[in-house]
Amino acid sequence: MSARKRPHIGKLDLKAGRISMEHGAGGKLSAQLVAELFQPAFADEALEAGDDGATLDLASGALAMSTDTFVVSPLFFPGGDIGKLAACGTINDVAMMGADVAALSVGFVIEEGFALADLDRIARSLGDTARAARVRIVTGDTKVVERGKGDGVFINTTGIGVRRPGVSVAARSVRPDDVVIVSGPVGDHGVAILSRRPGYDFEADVESDCAALNGLVAALLDAVPAVKALRDPTRGGLAAQLNEIAWTAGCGFALDEDVVPVRPEVVAVCDLLGLDPLDLPCEGRLMAFVAPQDVSAALAALRAHPLGQGACVIGRAVADERRLVTARTGFGGERLVDWRAGEPLPRIC
Amino acid sequence: MSARKRPHIGKLDLKAGRISMEHGAGGKLSAQLVAELFQPAFADEALEAGDDGATLDLASGALAMSTDTFVVSPLFFPGGDIGKLAACGTINDVAMMGADVAALSVGFVIEEGFALADLDRIARSLGDTARAARVRIVTGDTKVVERGKGDGVFINTTGIGVRRPGVSVAARSVRPDDVVIVSGPVGDHGVAILSRRPGYDFEADVESDCAALNGLVAALLDAVPAVKALRDPTRGGLAAQLNEIAWTAGCGFALDEDVVPVRPEVVAVCDLLGLDPLDLPCEGRLMAFVAPQDVSAALAALRAHPLGQGACVIGRAVADERRLVTARTGFGGERLVDWRAGEPLPRIC
Repeated sequence: MSARKRPHIGKLDLKAGRISMEHGAGGKLSAQLVAELFQPAFADEALEAGDDGATLDLASGALAMSTDTFVVSPLFFPGGDIGKLAACGTINDVAMMGADVAALSVGFVIEEGFALADLDRIARSLGDTARAARVRIVTGDTKVVERGKGDGVFINTTGIGVRRPGVSVAARSVRPDDVVIVSGPVGDHGVAILSRRPGYDFEADVESDCAALNGLVAALLDAVPAVKALRDPTRGGLAAQLNEIAWTAGCGFALDEDVVPVRPEVVAVCDLLGLDPLDLPCEGRLMAFVAPQDVSAALAALRAHPLGQGACVIGRAVADERRLVTARTGFGGERLVDWRAGEPLPRIC
Repeated sequence: MSARKRPHIGKLDLKAGRISMEHGAGGKLSAQLVAELFQPAFADEALEAGDDGATLDLASGALAMSTDTFVVSPLFFPGGDIGKLAACGTINDVAMMGADVAALSVGFVIEEGFALADLDRIARSLGDTARAARVRIVTGDTKVVERGKGDGVFINTTGIGVRRPGVSVAARSVRPDDVVIVSGPVGDHGVAILSRRPGYDFEADVESDCAALNGLVAALLDAVPAVKALRDPTRGGLAAQLNEIAWTAGCGFALDEDVVPVRPEVVAVCDLLGLDPLDLPCEGRLMAFVAPQDVSAALAALRAHPLGQGACVIGRAVADERRLVTARTGFGGERLVDWRAGEPLPRIC
């Protein structure tokens, strides 16, 4: 991104203006978009240096890096928008690696004709969320595609951080008897998005849980550096993530379905639509996998943080060569928590 | 990205298969796409660890980071494709910061119905290009959007590297009398893309110059650590980049138009379409800004490398409060090399 205002162009019309192909072509109008819309939203000295990339001085240590492109539809939803989601999603992915998140890059693909007012709102939301999480936005890129070749806005964020010394979270470290903790009620993000989708005929008073979890992770790792693994159950929900970890770690998981926290409104929507809450994505919850002796300390640390007040134990890893995830219900039944092939929720993040 | 093959699904049909929404939904089919298509193409141990991000041990030093999303149309063009371009573009941006490029992340947005054979070809091209440039691909993400909500494939790459100790390239360091060197003929990429665009009625025997320049930059910085600034003239070509640097550095530039290297085929297309070669993008050329006493050493270092054999001096920085870029022609005329508002080449990278 490039710096400062250029002469010879009128100010960007942030109220009624729209994105044109020229905004993505690398000329004066591109520079103006960066200077008048993105730089105020992201406010970082690296963006203002006028070079096509950023230089960062990080603490020494192994670097963590993660990338995610956000194509959520609709762009604005109860509890958030694609900008907030793009900040939280990647901050959380880097945090789940046991790293202190340092910086994000941001890449926009914008459809011709998109309202500058909406773009401004999204950029500010992204910037505000990152700033509140103490993560810098250090470099960016903007592309524009013709009307009908995109869908409003897609955003890639890529995050880097420094892994905490003495912390080694990795899916493969999980062993039978390790305990699975979830930091709060699941499925809110999925229901919040569905409630705004054309064709879904229900009103749900549920907001997305979309939140940056790097502070919560830091609190947990300060208290329990020996956490085995961390995951945020986004696409595919708890079910996909547990199956993924089961596969990587070579164990199974046994859940106690009755204690998995799910809001009554989310249960109601799942009953209505025939969905399983365990498949629904969260964007502000984490699963922590800890050894039995660390459970109390982990729960205490999570519950002491505003984003972890609903933390509870939902199950444990078991020896199982088939690497199955099962859930026991209050009626004494047991069911397989399958790993879906795909769907039911496209473009949820 | 996640590791290893999963049971219960037939093998991906890389000949006749197509992308479905399920490939982007985070379930088994997403994992299969990663395991059977992306992992073989990108072959990196970090991708195989089964975590949602990568850990890297880098040399100590300031970190450089740059991001770029590629929306080039068409996806395949003479001399390259969007995969090769996505590797080169970001490798070059990080290299232009005077950094040794270490790793890339890759984020795909794929349109439903896209041919797996084309996706495989693109992924392999990206992977092969990065490997040849000795840059790792350490983490990735795949999203799928409905038919008509994208345009085949968009790719974000984000690169990180470690800045070379003792090297400090920055646009603001350029001073009057510094010399502008270009590493080879300009405009090839622009003409190669245009020659494949519907509606352009010409045949041009020009291939994109698309190439990873990190090796060339290393050779230059080994010989001349005091290089003032480096830029790759992509979107907007030499004209946009020189105007950008003029603005940042607070000087003007005087070019000798007759010595700017442009292939005769590129000149012919520019004459035909009324384009200025200085506006045309390159994807495998760099501009180096060096002090007068370093010119010979810089030219020698560039010309000794296969990608810099056509290196030559094209002008110099001048004191000019208006920060104008001008070009003198053989007829003794002088013209303003303006900074365009946008166009004429949308979706060129």
